[in-house]
Amino acid sequence: MRREEMSGTDHQNSETAATLGTLATPALLLDVHRLDRNLVRLSSRMAERGVVLRPHMKTAKSIDVTRRAYPSVSGPITVSTLAEAEYFARHGFRDMTYAVGLAPHTAERVMRLRKAGVDLKVLLDSPEQARMLGAAGRAAGVTPTAFIEIDCDGHRGGLTADDPKLIAVAVALGEAGVELAGVLTHAGESYSLFTPEALFAAAENERAVAVAAAEALRAAGHQCPIVSVGSTPTAHFAEDLTGVTEMRAGVYMFFDLVMHGVGVCTTDDIAISVLATVIGTKPEKGWILVDAGWMALSRDRGTAAQRVDHGYGLVCDVAGNLYPDLIVSQASQEHGILAIRPGSAHALPNLPIGAKIRILPNHACATASQHELYNVVSAGGDAIHARWPRMRGW
Amino acid sequence: MRREEMSGTDHQNSETAATLGTLATPALLLDVHRLDRNLVRLSSRMAERGVVLRPHMKTAKSIDVTRRAYPSVSGPITVSTLAEAEYFARHGFRDMTYAVGLAPHTAERVMRLRKAGVDLKVLLDSPEQARMLGAAGRAAGVTPTAFIEIDCDGHRGGLTADDPKLIAVAVALGEAGVELAGVLTHAGESYSLFTPEALFAAAENERAVAVAAAEALRAAGHQCPIVSVGSTPTAHFAEDLTGVTEMRAGVYMFFDLVMHGVGVCTTDDIAISVLATVIGTKPEKGWILVDAGWMALSRDRGTAAQRVDHGYGLVCDVAGNLYPDLIVSQASQEHGILAIRPGSAHALPNLPIGAKIRILPNHACATASQHELYNVVSAGGDAIHARWPRMRGW
Repeated sequence: MRREEMSGTDHQNSETAATLGTLATPALLLDVHRLDRNLVRLSSRMAERGVVLRPHMKTAKSIDVTRRAYPSVSGPITVSTLAEAEYFARHGFRDMTYAVGLAPHTAERVMRLRKAGVDLKVLLDSPEQARMLGAAGRAAGVTPTAFIEIDCDGHRGGLTADDPKLIAVAVALGEAGVELAGVLTHAGESYSLFTPEALFAAAENERAVAVAAAEALRAAGHQCPIVSVGSTPTAHFAEDLTGVTEMRAGVYMFFDLVMHGVGVCTTDDIAISVLATVIGTKPEKGWILVDAGWMALSRDRGTAAQRVDHGYGLVCDVAGNLYPDLIVSQASQEHGILAIRPGSAHALPNLPIGAKIRILPNHACATASQHELYNVVSAGGDAIHARWPRMRGW
Repeated sequence: MRREEMSGTDHQNSETAATLGTLATPALLLDVHRLDRNLVRLSSRMAERGVVLRPHMKTAKSIDVTRRAYPSVSGPITVSTLAEAEYFARHGFRDMTYAVGLAPHTAERVMRLRKAGVDLKVLLDSPEQARMLGAAGRAAGVTPTAFIEIDCDGHRGGLTADDPKLIAVAVALGEAGVELAGVLTHAGESYSLFTPEALFAAAENERAVAVAAAEALRAAGHQCPIVSVGSTPTAHFAEDLTGVTEMRAGVYMFFDLVMHGVGVCTTDDIAISVLATVIGTKPEKGWILVDAGWMALSRDRGTAAQRVDHGYGLVCDVAGNLYPDLIVSQASQEHGILAIRPGSAHALPNLPIGAKIRILPNHACATASQHELYNVVSAGGDAIHARWPRMRGW
């Protein structure tokens, strides 16, 4: 049995009863009501604009979460690893984009999926990769399909819209027998913004650069059917999407404190949290010790670079109500230290040993990846409705 | 089948051939020669001093790694989660310390292991926990055994040696029918040191505080058989261990860049690394893009607070030879950006798409936890000798 298909009842925590009060901690909670609300928010936004939403599975890595977005059809998705592509292919998904630059060993693995009927599109930005992909396609007897990666904000890889290499890559794809899917860009720098004006501008820049690249390719005689953009901040701030055909986003399903700092969500929109138990107190230091350290929360300190630093997370009671200014100020592997945010006049709450709390994470992708499964809850309720396994690996 | 007992051949990467050249990336490598050398270094050091070494399994989380330390006997170990305790119990280990403060739900689970014949000792620092543990023991019909946690440097939990609560906890244990195993402390602040003098002093302080606490308990009429200390830095710098009966350490098996920065190891001692593949280049920015981001490396930036900041890791060629001043300067989920360290006169090496590199991690515990298994290699060799699964969860 593959581990990602392992049912919740086989899991090592299966002896725990299905309520928040008795769940072994630390444990990852997913509020399905907030998840559904977040999914509808962005899918409605894209439907209004006539743009395909291709959700990025790098955050959730779970067929059960994906089925909330696609209850009946297995629509377009984005994946961050080939293990994700293989997992979702086993669950019936056929239209995927692998949004990480191509390497020789991944080209071969992609061809195996294409041969099995999965329309898995890949990403590249060099003639070398185009030739490598063409060779892998010929060896497997299938036609590969690739996006050219466009760099809209200097964040990572890709070519600028006016780089002469753009046309050279398109030519190399044609010569190598690879179909050009279109252009793909990601406004990764939007994560460091925090005003609506800057976010509107980042979204418009992402759109304009992607469309300019597509137009440059078309002017040179290349088909460029898909113009794919996306990041959770720009997806929620883009007003005009003229020329864009699809939007990619992942963390929007769960949201997190970094997205709250950017201004894309409220803390009430954050759908995942880590349930923890108080295991000690140090009143003389203003500390409460809990059993969620960085192994349960991740080492992500994304809010450290934002206007409000939440340490390793913001603390709520077991029902999800925030304690004023209570954060996870330090984390070792299996210990978290709760303290009142520096400068706050609020007092440390009285939490005895054994008390349970919830921690809202800085970065949903990183925190969720520390866990085997989601314990599914509904707003305010104590019951665990389901346990949804996550997949991992590459 | 439990997932930690899953054999390597069932794994999703099983189709890859067993050499570094063909291994799918990113992948975790473990150099068994360095592992063995690190194990012998500390075990010899403790044997010379007549102190029991109780290795901490929080770093390796693998029976195969543990069997390099204990090839024939199942000796004393430390664990950081009850899932680790249950895993090692299934593999025949009977003498364990769970070195995280006790909570009500963990007390019950500990009693199930004790009832099954595992001498699992727990940690606490309050009369409430003593009473809770006693109640769990009575409910299960077994006698619990507990350490009192001692705070030697203000790092986390525990009582100072002169805290009157120390005797109150020992009394509460006696009244609750719990056996006092002894005292346990951890010089967690030693991780922020970097001179031999400071490390010698931290080790002596750790020893002196633990022994003072044991003496205070004995003077009040309590048995205190075990005096347990430990952190990887103090374990390697302690000269006199008079009064100490056991040493705990975990990261010493693998070492990492943080331990190198502290001064406990050389980069040649670091036994784990992440194999990655070049997927793009941005020569105009001085960047090489690889397929190992924070999902493969972890978000740990432990060297950021040290004298030399290694970003997300230090880069070697596929055989393990360091490229001068080449670090992972940025990481997103599945992308790493390699760049020359700021201020260095070294040039970016010429690494084409498809080239493989190894990345030495900041923090072995955090990086290893991002992976399903260890690909076991020997110094300089290309062959993968074995694939050792890791366990995870709580």
